[in-house]
Amino acid sequence: MTNTTWNRHHVISLADFQPEEYDTVLQTAASFQEVLSRRTKRVPALQGQVIANLFFESSTRTRSSFELAAKRLSADTLNFAPGTSSLTKGETILDTAKTYLAMGTDIMVIRHREAGVPLAIANEMDRLQTRVGVFNAGDGQHEHPSQALLDLFTLCTLIDAEKPRLSLLKGKKIAIVGDILHSRVARSNIWSLTASGAEVHLAAPPTLLPKWFADFVTEPIQSTQPSTSNSQLPRKLFLHWSLEPALKDADVVMTLRLQRERMTQHLLPSLREYHQRYGITKERLQLCKPDVKVMHPGPTNRGVEISSDLMDDPQFSLISQQVTSGVAVRMALLYLMSTGKM
Amino acid sequence: MTNTTWNRHHVISLADFQPEEYDTVLQTAASFQEVLSRRTKRVPALQGQVIANLFFESSTRTRSSFELAAKRLSADTLNFAPGTSSLTKGETILDTAKTYLAMGTDIMVIRHREAGVPLAIANEMDRLQTRVGVFNAGDGQHEHPSQALLDLFTLCTLIDAEKPRLSLLKGKKIAIVGDILHSRVARSNIWSLTASGAEVHLAAPPTLLPKWFADFVTEPIQSTQPSTSNSQLPRKLFLHWSLEPALKDADVVMTLRLQRERMTQHLLPSLREYHQRYGITKERLQLCKPDVKVMHPGPTNRGVEISSDLMDDPQFSLISQQVTSGVAVRMALLYLMSTGKM
Amino acid sequence: MTNTTWNRHHVISLADFQPEEYDTVLQTAASFQEVLSRRTKRVPALQGQVIANLFFESSTRTRSSFELAAKRLSADTLNFAPGTSSLTKGETILDTAKTYLAMGTDIMVIRHREAGVPLAIANEMDRLQTRVGVFNAGDGQHEHPSQALLDLFTLCTLIDAEKPRLSLLKGKKIAIVGDILHSRVARSNIWSLTASGAEVHLAAPPTLLPKWFADFVTEPIQSTQPSTSNSQLPRKLFLHWSLEPALKDADVVMTLRLQRERMTQHLLPSLREYHQRYGITKERLQLCKPDVKVMHPGPTNRGVEISSDLMDDPQFSLISQQVTSGVAVRMALLYLMSTGKM
Repeated sequence: MTNTTWNRHHVISLADFQPEEYDTVLQTAASFQEVLSRRTKRVPALQGQVIANLFFESSTRTRSSFELAAKRLSADTLNFAPGTSSLTKGETILDTAKTYLAMGTDIMVIRHREAGVPLAIANEMDRLQTRVGVFNAGDGQHEHPSQALLDLFTLCTLIDAEKPRLSLLKGKKIAIVGDILHSRVARSNIWSLTASGAEVHLAAPPTLLPKWFADFVTEPIQSTQPSTSNSQLPRKLFLHWSLEPALKDADVVMTLRLQRERMTQHLLPSLREYHQRYGITKERLQLCKPDVKVMHPGPTNRGVEISSDLMDDPQFSLISQQVTSGVAVRMALLYLMSTGKM
Repeated sequence: MTNTTWNRHHVISLADFQPEEYDTVLQTAASFQEVLSRRTKRVPALQGQVIANLFFESSTRTRSSFELAAKRLSADTLNFAPGTSSLTKGETILDTAKTYLAMGTDIMVIRHREAGVPLAIANEMDRLQTRVGVFNAGDGQHEHPSQALLDLFTLCTLIDAEKPRLSLLKGKKIAIVGDILHSRVARSNIWSLTASGAEVHLAAPPTLLPKWFADFVTEPIQSTQPSTSNSQLPRKLFLHWSLEPALKDADVVMTLRLQRERMTQHLLPSLREYHQRYGITKERLQLCKPDVKVMHPGPTNRGVEISSDLMDDPQFSLISQQVTSGVAVRMALLYLMSTGKM
Repeated sequence: MTNTTWNRHHVISLADFQPEEYDTVLQTAASFQEVLSRRTKRVPALQGQVIANLFFESSTRTRSSFELAAKRLSADTLNFAPGTSSLTKGETILDTAKTYLAMGTDIMVIRHREAGVPLAIANEMDRLQTRVGVFNAGDGQHEHPSQALLDLFTLCTLIDAEKPRLSLLKGKKIAIVGDILHSRVARSNIWSLTASGAEVHLAAPPTLLPKWFADFVTEPIQSTQPSTSNSQLPRKLFLHWSLEPALKDADVVMTLRLQRERMTQHLLPSLREYHQRYGITKERLQLCKPDVKVMHPGPTNRGVEISSDLMDDPQFSLISQQVTSGVAVRMALLYLMSTGKM
């Protein structure tokens, strides 16, 4: 694998990802996807390296995916359990990270309830002139880059399994529906999908999609390769307070998890009303293209943001493929971060 | 190893286990027991495969045993921590299982507080036409098949360490004492021990052994091999509300863990009275055969269901051997489930 | 590596450690430190062996260090999670240990809130004539031998990285400052540092350093090798209720973690006052030798026992080196315990 277009130690945000970087991730993930289909699903790429999963916010699903990706690359993994940690003894998060650094950690995978923690740790690792890579596995309401990249990989491999690339989504209409305001998944996906040249349509109640969100992406998509014709393309993002215009002729509908806390925060009247107005059902999909696909980052609330029968219908649902893609895409990112350090 | 008599993807219940299947497990476990006595205690049988321990009900002891068995087979393991999982976010158990399926899990080891959950997941895996095996590691008050199989292995290897087989227990008298009603260990053991041709005697207070329990096993032991002479044998199960008739001339006494909640449920007057009437002591063992053995699935309440000195007496207690057998028997079952899928 | 001076199955306390044993640990750790600097940071020394981390008192930092050390030695590890264990079901600690013994554990790494638990388990393992080694990873206010040995290694390698040895600290002045009374780290360090021939000065408020503590070490340092000239040396321990005499001309200052519970126990007036009187700052270090080094076992309370700027100053702080040393020293101890059993 040639990584002429990759020189990141850290994966924190997709805001400044360039088209060539997306393509490097997609192609590397495709080659790991092939490894995962073999009987011996393991490559020695990161043998002897230590990957520490520092999940300050607990998550079994994402941690398992990262852990499996690390094991497939032959790395050693350390799991940090927030409830039983030094944090409860007054240690700062940076000091916890520095402890794992001193133990010999090569890559830190970090999830935290507060936006900005992975970036702060990455900055500290750079300030200390270490070669440690920091991987943002979800920080507050900021970003969740590996989720957006596995979504991208899932969509692109659907079109061309052998050679997934960003440009395959050009001109597609992709609707993102649900609690946009609080969703790090939505934020990361907006960066990657608009970078592909797709039209991204957001749909949510006004409380979960305030007007100022229209300013989310302003700068055009940039490319470091001057020869590329689509450098300096504008990003296409549209906001809707009702579902219909977003679903109309859509190629893809991404639903987002609705957190029950939103009720108690008076942002929504009731789960039932939310489902009636914004829940994705087979009936509603009739507004979309006939071969529309539905995605969800999980875990799902069946019958709230998505109807139960739709979720289980392989004609529409990509949910399983998303989870499967997650292992290959995280392998690709861990591998690239590791080579990007040489 | 030839597995001509094994074609199960799942191990959920012993109710329909056939004599030939018991013997396959016993013989396979004996060969793994030999592996465990070597300096390098590892075989490459399940290399590259993923075993997910989905312990929705937490258990360190059983999870460690399964984890070690998986590592001895060179499999990769994923541990699911119920407290920090998507379940608390509203995801259904089937969706959690499907997530682990999509990540590439080959065998799911499932423990759950409710009876039937492993079966429901196994059915879903089959409906989805996957090759995933489901291993019931204890479901509510239903079954705990690996515990009964390790008990069986412990008893059979005591008689013939090289060639353990079901028929070795024919005619033995085995007492199971304690909280039968709530015990998945007792239920699984009743299936395996009556299948061996042993006489199984249950003893407990009436609140923990209701009359209807006599109907527990009705169908005779079946064998798929028509040449076997003991096909269609009746199962021998006896109920007692006092200890003495169960212990009289017994070859083996299995005690069960008494859960303290039983007091608050008004099923028992006090721990002290329970110990006086149903606790197994050296004195009481004088009713049994001179070389009687005592078993307990653990964890024990010393001085409640079993006296402390008896538990520590290697002349009688098989408790350590049971734990040791657990690793070999679980290796055998994971291996067989894996080959049963080819 | 020749271990002619090592025949311990267990590492419980440094009270009876002999100079030759310290040197064996230091030299073995130095050779593993070299391994850790290679690209493939793994040796097959403990392949197939099982190391169980029984952390009855939870600790992410120390458990991660032990886990990494075990993985670097190619051992299999089992992690025991106290919250989800059989302990909550009434099992005794010795029974839990015997369960891990029966599963095939080779070394148990034990941390417990109560002093004496690792020793009790070690005694039980010996009484049962097993070859299992017990490693005290911190027991109550008793000892934390691996912490003191990694501190020793850190200091000795600072003087001679290639050939660290106990005698390098002879004549050095080392101050230990803080909550001496409750610190297992201080107790273990007092044994190792006085054994080196260093002068150890303790400084703390009287409530955290009672008069009777002066009797802590009475017996002289012993050596089994009669040829060694420094056998039967007296241990040099001094107590101070103010900071200045301890810091005066010190070569090393060890600060200890102040637990916030000490306030509610009326042992201290306030954190602020504690910092004013006993907190280590750059200003206070002017009392010490110019090249003084500062150590802390972690996790730290920045601005309480140590000032934040001092902690981050690589000119003085050895805190990162301590964590790094921890992996090599624990590898050395696990390896030596394992060979000591043959």
